[in-house]
Amino acid sequence: MDHFPKEKTAETRVEMAMTAIRKRIRSRQATSGVRLPSIRALTQQLKISKSTVVEAYERLVAEGEVASRPGSGFYIAGHLPPLSIMENSPTLERDVDPVWMTRQSLAADEQLLKPGCGWLPPSWMPEPEIQRALRAHARPGQANLVDYSTPQGLPALRQRLSRKLMDRSIDATPDQIILTESGTHSVDLLCRFFLKPDDVVILDDPCYFNFHALLRAHRVQVVGVPFTPSGPDLKAFEEALIEHKPRLYITNSGLQNPTGATLSPVNAHRVLKLAEQHDLTIIEDDIFADLEHGAAPRLAAFDGFDRVVQIGSFSKTLSASIRCGYIATKSDWVPEITNLKLATSFGAGAFSQQIALHLLKDGAYRRHVNGLREKLAGAMSTTIPKLEGLGLSIWTKPNAGMFLWCELPDQLDAVQVAKNALEDNMMLAPGNAFSANQTANSHLRFNVAQMSDPKIFKTLEKAMKRASKS
Amino acid sequence: MDHFPKEKTAETRVEMAMTAIRKRIRSRQATSGVRLPSIRALTQQLKISKSTVVEAYERLVAEGEVASRPGSGFYIAGHLPPLSIMENSPTLERDVDPVWMTRQSLAADEQLLKPGCGWLPPSWMPEPEIQRALRAHARPGQANLVDYSTPQGLPALRQRLSRKLMDRSIDATPDQIILTESGTHSVDLLCRFFLKPDDVVILDDPCYFNFHALLRAHRVQVVGVPFTPSGPDLKAFEEALIEHKPRLYITNSGLQNPTGATLSPVNAHRVLKLAEQHDLTIIEDDIFADLEHGAAPRLAAFDGFDRVVQIGSFSKTLSASIRCGYIATKSDWVPEITNLKLATSFGAGAFSQQIALHLLKDGAYRRHVNGLREKLAGAMSTTIPKLEGLGLSIWTKPNAGMFLWCELPDQLDAVQVAKNALEDNMMLAPGNAFSANQTANSHLRFNVAQMSDPKIFKTLEKAMKRASKS
Repeated sequence: MDHFPKEKTAETRVEMAMTAIRKRIRSRQATSGVRLPSIRALTQQLKISKSTVVEAYERLVAEGEVASRPGSGFYIAGHLPPLSIMENSPTLERDVDPVWMTRQSLAADEQLLKPGCGWLPPSWMPEPEIQRALRAHARPGQANLVDYSTPQGLPALRQRLSRKLMDRSIDATPDQIILTESGTHSVDLLCRFFLKPDDVVILDDPCYFNFHALLRAHRVQVVGVPFTPSGPDLKAFEEALIEHKPRLYITNSGLQNPTGATLSPVNAHRVLKLAEQHDLTIIEDDIFADLEHGAAPRLAAFDGFDRVVQIGSFSKTLSASIRCGYIATKSDWVPEITNLKLATSFGAGAFSQQIALHLLKDGAYRRHVNGLREKLAGAMSTTIPKLEGLGLSIWTKPNAGMFLWCELPDQLDAVQVAKNALEDNMMLAPGNAFSANQTANSHLRFNVAQMSDPKIFKTLEKAMKRASKS
Repeated sequence: MDHFPKEKTAETRVEMAMTAIRKRIRSRQATSGVRLPSIRALTQQLKISKSTVVEAYERLVAEGEVASRPGSGFYIAGHLPPLSIMENSPTLERDVDPVWMTRQSLAADEQLLKPGCGWLPPSWMPEPEIQRALRAHARPGQANLVDYSTPQGLPALRQRLSRKLMDRSIDATPDQIILTESGTHSVDLLCRFFLKPDDVVILDDPCYFNFHALLRAHRVQVVGVPFTPSGPDLKAFEEALIEHKPRLYITNSGLQNPTGATLSPVNAHRVLKLAEQHDLTIIEDDIFADLEHGAAPRLAAFDGFDRVVQIGSFSKTLSASIRCGYIATKSDWVPEITNLKLATSFGAGAFSQQIALHLLKDGAYRRHVNGLREKLAGAMSTTIPKLEGLGLSIWTKPNAGMFLWCELPDQLDAVQVAKNALEDNMMLAPGNAFSANQTANSHLRFNVAQMSDPKIFKTLEKAMKRASKS
């Protein structure tokens, strides 16, 4: 009997190894083809003997969880569980998970105060103008209400968009434009086009939280590069290019989400030079362009669609319900991106495109965004002192737009503050939801357009006080 | 000098091997993580010596196209070219490529006759009713015209859909329904959820051509199982399950595209039994359900959402421009499919959902589809004798719907007939665009709703005559 404890320990080690292998199977980290770590790799990683790993694998093969192929190692047997983009994240708490943020923002609860929301309140949107456009299109013979749109989308709208881009020195002919359902749909299509599983993508840290969720759905790796008030930190950007050989960089050049910062011309030039040196493609998400007062530099303008692809939409400035986004890219890439769009969503909605065109043509859109800019500037200047009054510091004062990126005093935990606020029916946007490296633990993103209710500041103050005590 | 020819031959062999490896790199067949075939595998496949393969790999490494990792083989170096879903198909001619078919169907040319088109002509769609619904929603306070929809989509529409499904003995609560932009969007989301690159998917042969393009975008392998007038060939289906261990089977149970056949109850039972034995998930695409006269058996009704997921849309029966599809699935899968939808398209369009609901509620949709069924039955009974008069044979007489799957006489080449017809401004749908195994070389899909113009039959006759001479 004296060898029993030893036996038991060996047994425990085998079980530990089995648990480690099972964990890999469930996490689907092994996306690139169901291959499991080699015996040697696992021996090193788990710091156990080779015979223990062999035993663990043999048992899992016997149980049918793992298949072995002679000479080529071990594979996950049978079917993987379906993809989970929420529970798969090892570093994020549920409360700052990007998907959770999205669900909070979309919650239909009208009582909920939403200073953490990423878009404008419905009352700021041009509802009467849209109603007028709808009535115009409800007349017989006025519009295509039943058929698919053409593969690239309504030619007259692409023409209009081409002229709009020209105003920002971005030279895209209508043939270089593909209409989509939304900005997110545009980015998603481009990810399908450029990425394969396990590729590396650079994101700004912080950046729009849904990029993290979107890229998880593409099974790629994200590298966060610290963002500064004039663009990405160039030293860290270059290091990331050298170390990770990323396929893509996805960014907002103007009124970045969540910081409100705008890329400086010098930074734009340097980013493009590095991109060229390291054969990097850039997706420039320009959905806030119409909220800017003057034409800020755009990567697509500097680059001329050599390695930059630009996307945009009307979701943030016109309506999230009238689905219409676009991709502007070099001509070479247009056919295959269009093919991918057709294969994965067939045609886009002709009707939304017609409504957007109507509002662009009759000047309603221009008047609306002119008004928005004024209103946002006003909200910005009244909100900043109120937040500063509560002890928050503004990371950078944005030129325009709706976002303010703020740091809490005394290194307060933003997740805790957000949790406290939610108990009082207010949704905040904690910094780490935007941060690949989880370096924004004391930051919050605010939307000045959602902060007219004075209750918001009282609730925030209370949530901060409770967090400082805990 | 006498060894020179031998040297040259060795050189040629190395170059041949390099070409073979480069071809793999470009075709991206090696999707599962840029790994290239082992030296041994390539030696066997190309029937050349090991030293030739080693030399070829070493040169490609020197040229920077391939990277070697000690102990783990050869990998594609640097970036792959972007994904191409059109040119990648080794077996299909351009003329029967699914993407080409889609583009032809969407061509805006109004002069083009389209008996090969997959949907109803605009004049058959309820445009006046949609106009009325638009006017109703253009009144102040009547509708959400600017905001996002809730994560799963408009609750009242999901309730309505739940009742509609109940009429077909499909028991889905509103909570089990997720609204999407379209049927294709629904299938695409489910592919993201269930599939990883290199998985195997079973399709009916023939089946809806866009499934082929969609699955290429997901980088999976397709296995075609011959389709019979009562459903898939069960023997071939079982063999495919055993041999290929597929993750999914995607099918239309009712009024299958392109054959118009409807799954028999016995076949449905057997398919589900096999699915259970082999742990197969089934996506039942039911977009033609409302065109049926009676309630045919549905896999989702038999199965109760255990391993069947059902999708549908209003694109074919109401409007392709009012984007609204759905997924009905077991409760367990709802959160993650919704997460994937949010991550990849943010919200779906609230407005389209409201228009669809309006037309369902006021009875306009029911009246419209009742009328459609009559009209289609009439078109079917006048079209069949005309096609038979030209020597075509009908594969099966559909119970309802718009499609007729026909075989040309004398084994005429359908691609050649389609090419001839296109010169006369008529778009046909050649059989192999629908066939994974390219076994439908003499078949054409016709849409009876697109065939009221007598010119169509004359053009077809001429195209067939020219093909029989060539």
